[in-house]
Amino acid sequence: MKKVLAFDIGGTKIAYATIDEKGDFVSEVIKVTTPKTAQGIYDLLKTVIKGLEDEIDGVAIATAGAINNENNKIISRVGNLPEGYNETDFLSLTDKPILLENDANSAGWAEFKLGAAKGSENAVVLTLGTGVGSGIIVNGKLLKGKSGSAGEMHVRMGFARERKCTCGLWDCLETYVSGNALTTDAKIYMSPDATSYDVIRGLKENNQKAKAAFEHWQGCLENALVMVANLFDPEVIVLSGSMAQFVEYDKLNKQANDDILTQPFVLKQAKFENNAGMLGAALLLLERL
Amino acid sequence: MKKVLAFDIGGTKIAYATIDEKGDFVSEVIKVTTPKTAQGIYDLLKTVIKGLEDEIDGVAIATAGAINNENNKIISRVGNLPEGYNETDFLSLTDKPILLENDANSAGWAEFKLGAAKGSENAVVLTLGTGVGSGIIVNGKLLKGKSGSAGEMHVRMGFARERKCTCGLWDCLETYVSGNALTTDAKIYMSPDATSYDVIRGLKENNQKAKAAFEHWQGCLENALVMVANLFDPEVIVLSGSMAQFVEYDKLNKQANDDILTQPFVLKQAKFENNAGMLGAALLLLERL
Repeated sequence: MKKVLAFDIGGTKIAYATIDEKGDFVSEVIKVTTPKTAQGIYDLLKTVIKGLEDEIDGVAIATAGAINNENNKIISRVGNLPEGYNETDFLSLTDKPILLENDANSAGWAEFKLGAAKGSENAVVLTLGTGVGSGIIVNGKLLKGKSGSAGEMHVRMGFARERKCTCGLWDCLETYVSGNALTTDAKIYMSPDATSYDVIRGLKENNQKAKAAFEHWQGCLENALVMVANLFDPEVIVLSGSMAQFVEYDKLNKQANDDILTQPFVLKQAKFENNAGMLGAALLLLERL
Repeated sequence: MKKVLAFDIGGTKIAYATIDEKGDFVSEVIKVTTPKTAQGIYDLLKTVIKGLEDEIDGVAIATAGAINNENNKIISRVGNLPEGYNETDFLSLTDKPILLENDANSAGWAEFKLGAAKGSENAVVLTLGTGVGSGIIVNGKLLKGKSGSAGEMHVRMGFARERKCTCGLWDCLETYVSGNALTTDAKIYMSPDATSYDVIRGLKENNQKAKAAFEHWQGCLENALVMVANLFDPEVIVLSGSMAQFVEYDKLNKQANDDILTQPFVLKQAKFENNAGMLGAALLLLERL
């Protein structure tokens, strides 16, 4: 059975594992602190690939950043990775087949092929972590756009210029429904020092201010669900990332379906969580081998 | 050469014409006031089809409402058409091939095949009329979603509950960038009796209040462009509908491209305007004959 070495390259950690055609992890997932330079990242990848090259049929890489439609180059700025990382020559890492894909697209593909969106043809997978990413499936294919960077959830949710976004604009979706957004709500509804952790702890203790913060955050998420359901008319919307575990699925599913003009969708929690990026990139490569 | 009878069914007027395979109108475009009942509309269509049936190879209908492509049925509420219209049995109108498509999708297809978006593979056509519609092209195909109702631009642009939308929600895109939205801005920036017409007249007279109203409206449109460019990464965004003629294209093109995270797009004015719906539906049917 064919198998590939899959990486997930993030600003904090790089994870890797070997994955087979069935989507099974045939090795343990190893996590390494992300090196501080682009060269350091390149050298780490090179070392791991060389060490495993005899056992694998290719290398799949899920990474932050927009990836061109040929799946071998980063074509956008990549905020939380070292300078120069976006110019990495990934193809030179190995003579074996290699595939790059955006991490949110990869996670979306894993959920679509084997996870919470399996069986659908049109699905949206929203990754609610520090920021917000998306993997969007249209007619059984990843939505990539003309250059590979479709699915950027930088949609302005208001005109008030209340919340500055990492992209340089104001009031993007990300500033209302990410983990950082819940910290913003914590400061507004609880106290200037509060964070998202205080909100989550407060919910368990039935703290009214924590509840208000969470309800504002979840109300914004409902807006986001209505938006993607009205635009894409998907069978299923999947929530992934560190914030997905806190969402009240039944309540939000009902509310958002009441508000849309399109046909009903189903809201689900992601199946694969942290390993979805590696798995999705691996599946995309294995389909081509 | 094959030719089809094409209708565009709107709340105010029904237009029809005969269109050939090259996309040429081989008859004059006839406009009729929309009958007040669903039965009246059905009877009108039936009469016209019967009168022309010997000369045509099929019937193409662009209409308000979301369309299911498997059975040519309307699957949504259709706000500004008579009660019962959405249950019309279009298939019983003729024994010839018949095709129904949403009017904004049809207009989008016309611009994509023969108009301002020709040559692209990914395009968004925004129709800025009384309301706002969209026809979205992904990889050379209309974005339809699971049930045919994708592309509903009912995206909430704010949390202030300032502007009630026809869809029942608050602060949808439509309430900020449609013709009605410009009337709202006229009332805010000019006077309680002012309408969009006063804004347009005021611009010509260099009226500062009219300018402020228009700039607010156009700023909201810039938000909408950034949204669709970030989500769909299209080669081109086309503006259609009655409001499209007033937009400052060069200025807006530059502003929006400065603000997106995806690769540059080109902003264009639609080529076909009022006849785009008929033409697009006709082309969709002619491709199948």
